Amino acid sequence: MQINTYAVYDGVAERELDGAAVIVIDVLRATSTIITAIENGCRAVIPVSEVEEAVGRYREMNDPGKVLLGGERNMLRIDGFHLSNSPLDYTREAVFDKTVIMTTTNGTAAIRKAYYADIVLIGALRNASAAASAAANAGCGSITLLCAGTRGRYSTDDIIAAGAIINRLAEIVPDIRYDDLSYEAANIYRQCRNNIAGRLEPTLHYSALKNAGFTDDLRFCLDTDRTDVVPYYHNAVITRYK
Amino acid sequence: MQINTYAVYDGVAERELDGAAVIVIDVLRATSTIITAIENGCRAVIPVSEVEEAVGRYREMNDPGKVLLGGERNMLRIDGFHLSNSPLDYTREAVFDKTVIMTTTNGTAAIRKAYYADIVLIGALRNASAAASAAANAGCGSITLLCAGTRGRYSTDDIIAAGAIINRLAEIVPDIRYDDLSYEAANIYRQCRNNIAGRLEPTLHYSALKNAGFTDDLRFCLDTDRTDVVPYYHNAVITRYK
Repeated sequence: MQINTYAVYDGVAERELDGAAVIVIDVLRATSTIITAIENGCRAVIPVSEVEEAVGRYREMNDPGKVLLGGERNMLRIDGFHLSNSPLDYTREAVFDKTVIMTTTNGTAAIRKAYYADIVLIGALRNASAAASAAANAGCGSITLLCAGTRGRYSTDDIIAAGAIINRLAEIVPDIRYDDLSYEAANIYRQCRNNIAGRLEPTLHYSALKNAGFTDDLRFCLDTDRTDVVPYYHNAVITRYK
Repeated sequence: MQINTYAVYDGVAERELDGAAVIVIDVLRATSTIITAIENGCRAVIPVSEVEEAVGRYREMNDPGKVLLGGERNMLRIDGFHLSNSPLDYTREAVFDKTVIMTTTNGTAAIRKAYYADIVLIGALRNASAAASAAANAGCGSITLLCAGTRGRYSTDDIIAAGAIINRLAEIVPDIRYDDLSYEAANIYRQCRNNIAGRLEPTLHYSALKNAGFTDDLRFCLDTDRTDVVPYYHNAVITRYK
């Protein structure tokens, strides 16, 4: 089984996703947040790219109380939205049986980019082993780790999560083959698994969130293998993968 | 001083190169070969993207004996060309006082992409420290390591060379700041500096060249800090940087 990793989602050609099980990763914070929402009983997350599109869909659905708007721009809740991009907002009280229309700077665009894959799963550190198992058992010819990156650039947080998933894949997939970045991601994860926060200390996205006061979010997003929930993107909607 | 690294040259927006000293890296083998050509007294290397363009320029220049055609497709010498992409072809006897029109799969395209930078230098492991010094002293606002990659993908050989250069920059540049990939590249280099070949053993480009029998080329290209020559790309021609 071939494992490929892309540090930035827009670096992938759509034909390279054909036939693959893709795991989309945006650890800080979109995919960590989506996993938490689905874990807490959110009925569906609808990822959209633009704020205007989110608001338009919300009005169309016209079901206040059952539909929520979530997401961020410049790390903060969007004016008039119910929820930010913090996973700590997505409690059972807030999201159980609700649909969330969500827009974030990178993560939701990465998910939509994965459209051409055979199957699209949502991964992060919190569900690393579960995402690996789901992808390995999906019956696809290859597995692609599609990282969101930060502002179009390689982001170490996503690479570490890809590494955690690949490390688990190595235990359960026979005849595994890696592209260069998959191999390096697994290396980096093994080096820092006991202190991921320390490894991220000098990195851009982690330190931007830390400086903005999101320390509880960071701790939550870096907790590894805390849930078996694997969200699944299909027909433009994210639900729980069976 | 800000240090940025791109794993693949086509991932960089041209505006991001504005004001930067760029070091283009294609360790296996284009930039290693260009360094060797210039070191051996080659008057100029003209990088072009396509075989037809190389042949057209050769005919235009109409100076047989003084102008040579060099490069590869699928790792091998192009039919009718004088030189392949092996640095071992570019001996003093072959290239002294000659101009080489060169086309390779990735490296020459990466060099041409760097056009928008303030200054474009050619780097590899063989001239890592010299390239770092030249970039640090160029008086630009930032330094960008622009890796060629392999078939549009992250290639560990180029990342290790970027890491060698960044490691040297860290010794000579005050107030250095890294993007995430620069930081990881320096880490990877420090981990494998005593056995770069071993680290590259499982990687795609290295093993493709090894399986094709290019073991002497690989040994030559991985030798670090063997020359002070830093080639310089300016007005579409590569010459020795003063």
